[in-house]
Amino acid sequence: MRDLDDRRPEAIAVLKALFAHTGRAYIVGVTGNPGSGKSTVVDALISHYRAGGERVGVVAVDPTSPFSGGAILGDRIRMQRHATDPGVFIRSLATRGHLGGLSRSTFDVVTVLDAMGFGRVLVETVGVGQDEVDVMKAAHTSVVVTVPGLGDDIQAIKAGILEIADVLVVNKADREGADRAERDLMHMLDLRAPGERKDVEIVRTIANRGLAAGSGMVELAAAIAAHRGRVWSGEGGAARTRSRAQAQIAELVRALLADRAERALAARGGLGEVAAAVVERRQDPWSVAETVVDSL
Amino acid sequence: MRDLDDRRPEAIAVLKALFAHTGRAYIVGVTGNPGSGKSTVVDALISHYRAGGERVGVVAVDPTSPFSGGAILGDRIRMQRHATDPGVFIRSLATRGHLGGLSRSTFDVVTVLDAMGFGRVLVETVGVGQDEVDVMKAAHTSVVVTVPGLGDDIQAIKAGILEIADVLVVNKADREGADRAERDLMHMLDLRAPGERKDVEIVRTIANRGLAAGSGMVELAAAIAAHRGRVWSGEGGAARTRSRAQAQIAELVRALLADRAERALAARGGLGEVAAAVVERRQDPWSVAETVVDSL
Repeated sequence: MRDLDDRRPEAIAVLKALFAHTGRAYIVGVTGNPGSGKSTVVDALISHYRAGGERVGVVAVDPTSPFSGGAILGDRIRMQRHATDPGVFIRSLATRGHLGGLSRSTFDVVTVLDAMGFGRVLVETVGVGQDEVDVMKAAHTSVVVTVPGLGDDIQAIKAGILEIADVLVVNKADREGADRAERDLMHMLDLRAPGERKDVEIVRTIANRGLAAGSGMVELAAAIAAHRGRVWSGEGGAARTRSRAQAQIAELVRALLADRAERALAARGGLGEVAAAVVERRQDPWSVAETVVDSL
Repeated sequence: MRDLDDRRPEAIAVLKALFAHTGRAYIVGVTGNPGSGKSTVVDALISHYRAGGERVGVVAVDPTSPFSGGAILGDRIRMQRHATDPGVFIRSLATRGHLGGLSRSTFDVVTVLDAMGFGRVLVETVGVGQDEVDVMKAAHTSVVVTVPGLGDDIQAIKAGILEIADVLVVNKADREGADRAERDLMHMLDLRAPGERKDVEIVRTIANRGLAAGSGMVELAAAIAAHRGRVWSGEGGAARTRSRAQAQIAELVRALLADRAERALAARGGLGEVAAAVVERRQDPWSVAETVVDSL
C-alpha cells in the first residue's frame, strides 16, 4: 500500500476502482486516553474475531512526531504477534507534512481492506484531538477506552470523544477505582442534552487477559454487535451512512486542497522562502498566505 | 474579538494592521495528558506572572465536541477567578466546522493579545493530537505537563508531544510514583536520536498549591525563563523565529483553502447534497471531492 501514502494519481485511480468492491466491512474504531491500554483492547478484539473465523484488518493511526518522523510503539508491539496470521492485516499510519491528511489516509486504507474482503476492520487512534474525532467518523461503531484512576478529572474523556462513543470501556477493571470510573461515565452520559442522547453501553474489561474468562472481551464484542444491530438498520442506519460519506468527502476535499497548497508553496520556493518576508517583518502572514492561495 | 471568530474580511484586515504592533509578547504553550492538571498549572503561572507585575493573556484551546458545540470545562473553571483582574485576559477557543482551523484562530488571538501589550501569553491546549502540535508551534516555550501514575504506558507522552517539549512538568508530584515518572521522562529524553536532542528541564510541581512554598511554580517559571535565555537568542533564536513564521503561514494557507472549500461545497448545495451520489453508490468519494476542488 506504499502507493497510497505517496498520494500519486495512480493510487487515487486504484481507490476509485476499488470503491465498487467496498461496503461489506464492518469498521470498529477504538480510541481513548493515553495509558488506557487501547492497543491491548484491539489486540484482544483481533483474537476474538479471529477465533470466530473473521478476517481482521487493523489500521493503527499514530500521529507522528513532527521532528523524528516516527513514534514510540509502546504496547502496540504486542499486536504484532498477529502479523504472521494471514487472516490479519495490520497497517500503521502516521501524519506527515505541514498540512495534515491523517483521516484521508485512514479512509484510503479502510477502502483497500474492505475491497480485499476483510470483514472486520479495527481502526485504533491515539489521543483525543480533532484528527482522532475525524478518524472515528469513519467507523460504524466507536469504542472509547478509559481506565480507572484518572481521578476526578473529567477532562479525561472530554474533547468530543464522549459524544462519538457508541460503546464505553473501563479497561484495567481489576484496578482500584473501576466502580467509580463506571459511575463517572454514567454520570457524564446522564449530563448529555436530550437531543444528544443515544444508548451507550459501558463494558468493563481486563484486556491483557486476552480471551480468558472474566477479561470482558466477549461482553465487549457483544456490545459492539448490539450497537450494530441497533443502529445500522432502518432510518438511523441511512442517516449514519450519509454522515460517514459526508465526513469522507470533506476530508478528501481538504486533502486535495492541502496538496494544491503544498504545490503552490513549492512553486514559490518553499515555505522557508515564502516566510522570509514575515520573519523580516516586511509583510504580515495573512497577506503572504492570501498571495499563495490566490496563485493556485 | 468576536469578529475574529467570524473570519470576516474586516477581521483579517484588522489582524494585518495589528501585525506591525506585535513581536513583544512571550508565548508559553502548556499542554499534556488529560488529567495532568495542566489548567491548574496555567492558573498558578498566571498568579506567578501577575505577582511579578506582568500583564497576562491566556488562550485556552478546547477542541469542541462535534455534536454539542461545547465542551465540559473541568478544572478550567478555576482559572476564571482571574477573569476579574484587568491585567488578565482569558479567551477560550474551540474548533468548529468540518474543515478545522483551530491553530489559525490561536495565532489570531495571540496576535491581538500581543498587540494589546500583554507581555506574557499562555496558550493551553487539551489533548495530544496534531491540532495541539500545530498550536504549540506558535509558542516560544512549550511546557508539557504529565503526572505520576499513568503506569508504564509510554504512550502517555508520545504522539509528537515529547519532541515539542522545552520544559517537562511532573505535576501532582506529591502523589506516589513521582520519582518513577521523572525517571521515565529522563529515560525517554535519553532515547532521542542525537540530532533531536536539546536541553529539556524536568520540573516537579504541585500546582494546586498555587504559589505556596514547595509548589514548584517558581522553579517552573525559572525553567521557562532559562529556556527563553538559552534558545531565543543568536542563531538558534533566528531559526525558531523562521520556524514559527512558517508554521503560521502554512496554517493560514490551509485555513484560507478550507474557507474556499466550504464555499465551493455550499455552492453545490452543501455537503449533504454532494455526498448523496456516494451514499447511493453512483460515484466514488474521490471523484466527488475532485469535482468540488476543480470547481474552485
